[in-house]
Amino acid sequence: MRVLDLIDDKKRGREHSPAEIEWLVKGFAADEVPDYQMAAWLMAVRFQGMSPAETAALTKAMAESGETLNLEGLPRPWLDKHSTGGVGDKLTLVVVPILIAAGATCVKLSGRGLGHTGGTADKLESIPGFRTRLSAMEILESAARAGGCLAAHSASLVPADAKMYALRDATGTVDSLPLIAASIMSKKLACGAGTILLDVKVGRGALLPDRKKAAGLARTMVGLAARSGRRAVAVLTPMDQPVGLSVGNALEVEEALAVLRGEGPGDVRALSIALAAEGLHASGLAVSGTDGAEKAARMLDGGRALEAFARVVAVQGGDPGVVFSLAALPRSRLSAGLPASAGGTVAAVDALAVGQSSVLLGAGRSRKGEKVDPGAGVALRVRAGDRVAAGDLLGTVYAADSTRLRAGLARLQQAFVWAGSPPAADTPFRTADQVIEVIREP
Amino acid sequence: MRVLDLIDDKKRGREHSPAEIEWLVKGFAADEVPDYQMAAWLMAVRFQGMSPAETAALTKAMAESGETLNLEGLPRPWLDKHSTGGVGDKLTLVVVPILIAAGATCVKLSGRGLGHTGGTADKLESIPGFRTRLSAMEILESAARAGGCLAAHSASLVPADAKMYALRDATGTVDSLPLIAASIMSKKLACGAGTILLDVKVGRGALLPDRKKAAGLARTMVGLAARSGRRAVAVLTPMDQPVGLSVGNALEVEEALAVLRGEGPGDVRALSIALAAEGLHASGLAVSGTDGAEKAARMLDGGRALEAFARVVAVQGGDPGVVFSLAALPRSRLSAGLPASAGGTVAAVDALAVGQSSVLLGAGRSRKGEKVDPGAGVALRVRAGDRVAAGDLLGTVYAADSTRLRAGLARLQQAFVWAGSPPAADTPFRTADQVIEVIREP
Repeated sequence: MRVLDLIDDKKRGREHSPAEIEWLVKGFAADEVPDYQMAAWLMAVRFQGMSPAETAALTKAMAESGETLNLEGLPRPWLDKHSTGGVGDKLTLVVVPILIAAGATCVKLSGRGLGHTGGTADKLESIPGFRTRLSAMEILESAARAGGCLAAHSASLVPADAKMYALRDATGTVDSLPLIAASIMSKKLACGAGTILLDVKVGRGALLPDRKKAAGLARTMVGLAARSGRRAVAVLTPMDQPVGLSVGNALEVEEALAVLRGEGPGDVRALSIALAAEGLHASGLAVSGTDGAEKAARMLDGGRALEAFARVVAVQGGDPGVVFSLAALPRSRLSAGLPASAGGTVAAVDALAVGQSSVLLGAGRSRKGEKVDPGAGVALRVRAGDRVAAGDLLGTVYAADSTRLRAGLARLQQAFVWAGSPPAADTPFRTADQVIEVIREP
Repeated sequence: MRVLDLIDDKKRGREHSPAEIEWLVKGFAADEVPDYQMAAWLMAVRFQGMSPAETAALTKAMAESGETLNLEGLPRPWLDKHSTGGVGDKLTLVVVPILIAAGATCVKLSGRGLGHTGGTADKLESIPGFRTRLSAMEILESAARAGGCLAAHSASLVPADAKMYALRDATGTVDSLPLIAASIMSKKLACGAGTILLDVKVGRGALLPDRKKAAGLARTMVGLAARSGRRAVAVLTPMDQPVGLSVGNALEVEEALAVLRGEGPGDVRALSIALAAEGLHASGLAVSGTDGAEKAARMLDGGRALEAFARVVAVQGGDPGVVFSLAALPRSRLSAGLPASAGGTVAAVDALAVGQSSVLLGAGRSRKGEKVDPGAGVALRVRAGDRVAAGDLLGTVYAADSTRLRAGLARLQQAFVWAGSPPAADTPFRTADQVIEVIREP
């Protein structure tokens, strides 16, 4: 086999065999296929797409490129969860404890924030002492003790994906549906769960703003799971406005804890229950979505989800005190309030602008590898539909220095869409708490 | 400017500004733009194409990436010639002497053979002593003394093209019409001629087998010349069957010399006159194509083209004796005849198969940088339309060792298409001596 022939075939729209794709991925992971040939192949894929069989072969080859987790020693069902990323998306911190409390084993590996969307690993690390960098053995041991584990992705799992993503990021080949699907699902396959709950965000603040494309990605991922003997359910959720009121690492942990205590913003609770319900149903822990939703609500209201989260925190070295006293969470030194310059009704809050504000404040990254400030971020005070008077507080920003504070504040100011003003976007903002669509295996 | 933004723009079909293209080419030539990003950009160009303005900017930036030739000290008109490459294409060796004899200054830089097509630099080097590797100063001095110069392309002219072509070759991005046009025309612009005669081959043995695509390339190149203040004329000529009867380096020089003496195969003479006629007309040395053809025929028949060639050979260090005695030309040690296994009429001779046979015999290269055997090749004895009896000689092959000889002979055997047998190709073979179309500036 020659890479050049594979580039040529893909360029002309011919289908690769699974053996060809496996050979290409192995060669690339072993530094035998040069980056410039892989870049040309990736761009050809961007234009010609991939068949379901090709995408499945790519996913499998990537999943097998490094270590994999063997969950055999842990109680079933094994349930994993993934989000395509959003602003204020702390749902993992609520959903995984619900699933553990309801009887699932959840080994969930998370990424770090990049651009305007945050990452669960960063959020967890804002809990003093919490360790997200665990070896495969530590992950399995933690899960055995706490019913689940929330860790960061490591380079030893699916190294081909890390290498390929870095190249895609530098060559304009991120926006390919089969490549996105293979990247996500290879990591899920390597983590061993039998059931995979996928939260596919749709809207201005999402990776795929377009609903049709997001649904296409969801269907592709559900199909990939089926081809690999797993089961997946994908829930399309809105990402035009932030999830909840808090955006930032410790700020989001605080809000997730509020929801786990039966308090907190209604949309965080509603979306958490909706996602957990689909996960419980798909993994057999509930007989229907309705049954799953009832169980999920019980886990929240009875405090069992909060207990499950406290166990995970304790087992992974975190201060379990955060569950009861928020004082333990970090908060940046400087803060500034944003008052409304005039009275009016908030029509919407733009997730993209809030996410960008959060990056400027130091809570996120504009480049890979940058440090994040766990105590920085945005605490909103208003939501779509709220009426405010001039001078009312719209939100507060937190940052470590005044330059960041000013930059974040200025960006946040642009996030508010007022009723009666001309629509800023070409499409209306979706409400924040309604599931758009659920895509199950056919 | 960021490369990633340019990749993204091209991917989405947005047009680059001339400044953006200049920046990209300069950065690539200076090793500041990494190969993997350039590869992604090239593949995006392969899919999205380039506008005439973009192609012109690319051509200009490449032409200006290194040394250029200044012909100011030489008599006008300055006339250059290029062929997109064929099998047995020794037309430069006849056409350039005709143009010089008729009063033009021809500074013509040539490439080397690769794959089934030969290169003029290799052919010239089969003349004992002939130097094709000349500095810019030596090229201008030779042209001043001989009325023209036939040299090899050097790395100091258009280095961006050499670098980009190597990357295209390794990334499946050769087959892009604007990239092909820019590669050819950047070299022609750097060589300084005011008039450029382009021989665009069409057919099974050509870079672009399809007539429509070849015509598109021809029109693009003629347009590029006009945008740069030059004049170009493109002649589409057939390349389904070899040009003439000889394929190989010294073998082709021998055949070109025969034509320059008023002998040799009729198709070589006819195509040479047709090409020279367009060059003479375009450069103002003839008032019409017909006038140009008459002048070209006179240069051949009166021996003045042969004298012009002898002068070029002598000035560039070659043995001028080859013009009068072919004994000076090399010939490989081993030869084998190919007899017809049965009687019949030759319907066509497949240029691609003959070209491949020639590579197997050692006359060409399957990879860049390989040495060629100047004395190897194929001497055909029959042409389309010829009737043969069983045992009649179809051709002779020459090689330095018996392994090559056998491989070349076996491939040559497959080159003959017999009348009455089912057609081998999906399109009929064109006759070898008819110009297909002439494309001039609108």
